[in-house]
Amino acid sequence: MRVTGLRTHDLRAPTSRTLAGSDAVHSDPNYSAAYVVLETDGEHTGEGMTFTIGRGNDLCCAAIEALAHHVVGRELDELVGDIGATWRAIANDSQLRWLGPEKGTIHLATAALVNAVWDLWAKSASKPLWQLVTDMTPEEYVRCVDFRYLTDAITPDEALDLLRANEPTRAARLAELRRDGYPAYITSAGWLGYPNEQVRQLCREMLGEGWRAFKTKVGVSVESDIRRCEVMREELGDDVLLMADANQVWDVQQAIEWTRSLQPFDLRWIEEPTSPDDVLGHAAIRRGIAPIGVATGEHCANRVLFKQLLQAEAIDYCQIDACRLGGVNEVLAVLLLAAKFDVPVCPHAGGIGLCEYVQHLSIIDYVAVSASLADRTTEYASHLHELFVHPAVVRDGRYLVPDAPGYSMALVPDTFERFTWPGGSAWR
Amino acid sequence: MRVTGLRTHDLRAPTSRTLAGSDAVHSDPNYSAAYVVLETDGEHTGEGMTFTIGRGNDLCCAAIEALAHHVVGRELDELVGDIGATWRAIANDSQLRWLGPEKGTIHLATAALVNAVWDLWAKSASKPLWQLVTDMTPEEYVRCVDFRYLTDAITPDEALDLLRANEPTRAARLAELRRDGYPAYITSAGWLGYPNEQVRQLCREMLGEGWRAFKTKVGVSVESDIRRCEVMREELGDDVLLMADANQVWDVQQAIEWTRSLQPFDLRWIEEPTSPDDVLGHAAIRRGIAPIGVATGEHCANRVLFKQLLQAEAIDYCQIDACRLGGVNEVLAVLLLAAKFDVPVCPHAGGIGLCEYVQHLSIIDYVAVSASLADRTTEYASHLHELFVHPAVVRDGRYLVPDAPGYSMALVPDTFERFTWPGGSAWR
Repeated sequence: MRVTGLRTHDLRAPTSRTLAGSDAVHSDPNYSAAYVVLETDGEHTGEGMTFTIGRGNDLCCAAIEALAHHVVGRELDELVGDIGATWRAIANDSQLRWLGPEKGTIHLATAALVNAVWDLWAKSASKPLWQLVTDMTPEEYVRCVDFRYLTDAITPDEALDLLRANEPTRAARLAELRRDGYPAYITSAGWLGYPNEQVRQLCREMLGEGWRAFKTKVGVSVESDIRRCEVMREELGDDVLLMADANQVWDVQQAIEWTRSLQPFDLRWIEEPTSPDDVLGHAAIRRGIAPIGVATGEHCANRVLFKQLLQAEAIDYCQIDACRLGGVNEVLAVLLLAAKFDVPVCPHAGGIGLCEYVQHLSIIDYVAVSASLADRTTEYASHLHELFVHPAVVRDGRYLVPDAPGYSMALVPDTFERFTWPGGSAWR
Repeated sequence: MRVTGLRTHDLRAPTSRTLAGSDAVHSDPNYSAAYVVLETDGEHTGEGMTFTIGRGNDLCCAAIEALAHHVVGRELDELVGDIGATWRAIANDSQLRWLGPEKGTIHLATAALVNAVWDLWAKSASKPLWQLVTDMTPEEYVRCVDFRYLTDAITPDEALDLLRANEPTRAARLAELRRDGYPAYITSAGWLGYPNEQVRQLCREMLGEGWRAFKTKVGVSVESDIRRCEVMREELGDDVLLMADANQVWDVQQAIEWTRSLQPFDLRWIEEPTSPDDVLGHAAIRRGIAPIGVATGEHCANRVLFKQLLQAEAIDYCQIDACRLGGVNEVLAVLLLAAKFDVPVCPHAGGIGLCEYVQHLSIIDYVAVSASLADRTTEYASHLHELFVHPAVVRDGRYLVPDAPGYSMALVPDTFERFTWPGGSAWR
């Protein structure tokens, strides 16, 4: 099968109208997908996307097209025969890398394109993406990873040892996930733009649906954050897990003091307390707010940032993002790093398509890499799943194991009609 | 004066044909400028640019246009009345920031747009950019800076103290620069794609022109790097300053071992030994290769990276880039940080327009901020200056103080005819 062409779609949902997704620094997000379709001369297409929040989604589409020459015209067998080399070629295009390297628009585009290749690969193997990876030998897994800049933290040999140790017990863990699902938490009750009465109502509904882990946005004022946490604890009781997300709004010392003021609410973590680039800052915050944990990752540009967050003991929870990291290959690298440093991976989701993506990644982490569910919980947000042919499914607050071949990115045709920017019906 | 419009130009020079600019990871650069012109209803236009190396330059132009609404339609007095707030609004556009934040394509575009505003401001004040800043009071300087994420390293009050201490002696330092120029080094003899005989010839020519500080590219093989350094030391003798630049090619331990193999050549610094994101890696390398210094910065995404490189004692030389950082405002922030940590600023240049930019920044650093020339040297590369109406001028290896109003970005009309991509005469 040969990749014969590539097309992109600029899809945007008008979420700013309801403030779903709003937080302390993103006041008016329109959840968007820079979506790519790889056309082939075979029976499958490869679909991938990167997530943005509106303006600039067109730039990501253009960046995907700028990277297209690494994929279009090539045989799938050749692309995936050494998928690690394919990844490195895309991420290190000798001219485009200047725009990163490995960060920003060009890396978001790398994620979309790389994920589309993996989707095509999984479909051609008639497996869901998670199974394509969990069926790999440790050697095959390691060959997917670019270890450049990682060898001071983990070598390929160490990675092999780690994967081999858990290989014999993979089947038992998979059976457990098929029976119980993967633990999740929900963000949809606590968007910052929601009034407290709406938050109360949503907490009650979601408790009724079986959710036992919630997250709220914070960061506007100490007083309103305390009030928000009070409201949620009143509705949720003391036995439900509660997290808070500041979306990068604070300086280091401010983060420490502000988070301490939320200590009565038994928060499991504070998320993105400061700049996502500030490894040393996160480490200082973590020392300053224990026992509340520090979580970050949705804006961590690449595996080098995660390496340092782990080396510096700066995070308690590693929030990989399926589109911020440069696609499946780089996620596989960070899963190895997190396992080496014994830090739980709790993927960032919400957005468009992120839940559909990360359900695969959490399964890979448990079955093949970390072999642990301790302190793991994967984000879920409840809107925009109707865009997908095979949406993520949760039951009693846990993701069910998806079975459709591929990486769950196929869209219902209606999505293009509604959300294409700027001509779609949602925008007219 | 009101900004009435904005247009961008995708300009690319075919430098890959001569391998000028080639290094260990950028094998075929076509030096390029995403160039922006702010049109006004007054007598001046504002010009700015960001530098890239070819493919993707169009993405930077598109990103500048995506940011245009922060500037177009506004009065210059309003934009510069609180230039710090203007900067923060551009760098934190509530939707576009998702593409960074403060890194990659959108931040390169921020630099171009912000620098164009400063160019317009300086022209309207009939001053070269450096003078616009060195005529500011300490309070005015501090108001240009966004201290978000910096206050754990430097507060506005500390910055004021630092600037006030050097204010009374500004005039004497400026007189010294007008007499002697600002110390520089040259990169143009050591591009990686040049055969050693060409390097020999260029070293001789440049010594004859008065250069006493040189840099070479390294990173292909230990043997060829040793040979390159031997050739340069044979030509230059032992009294000339020699630096080496690895352009991110190594892992941490590899960087230490490889650099140690170059110890016989008395290198002042190794530049970009590993990933530009790897603060902790640079710190480990620095500990491992002393007395050779570590220099980095041309790919450091923003002030938060520089803050950490300084906090972690990871660098001996701080290589700000006029276009990688988000324009003049963020450069002014990093000059303060470097002064606070007593690390010399040695700007990255070469490229298109970078020498023209950084000459202003080094003057600002010496006259208003660090008040020191110790261990300072600013990069110079000798090609592509003919594109500019007011090119940077060096004499005896030192930058002369520029006097034309603005930020030196005006292009000769011929430049557009030759280098516009893809229709320009250089590409036909």
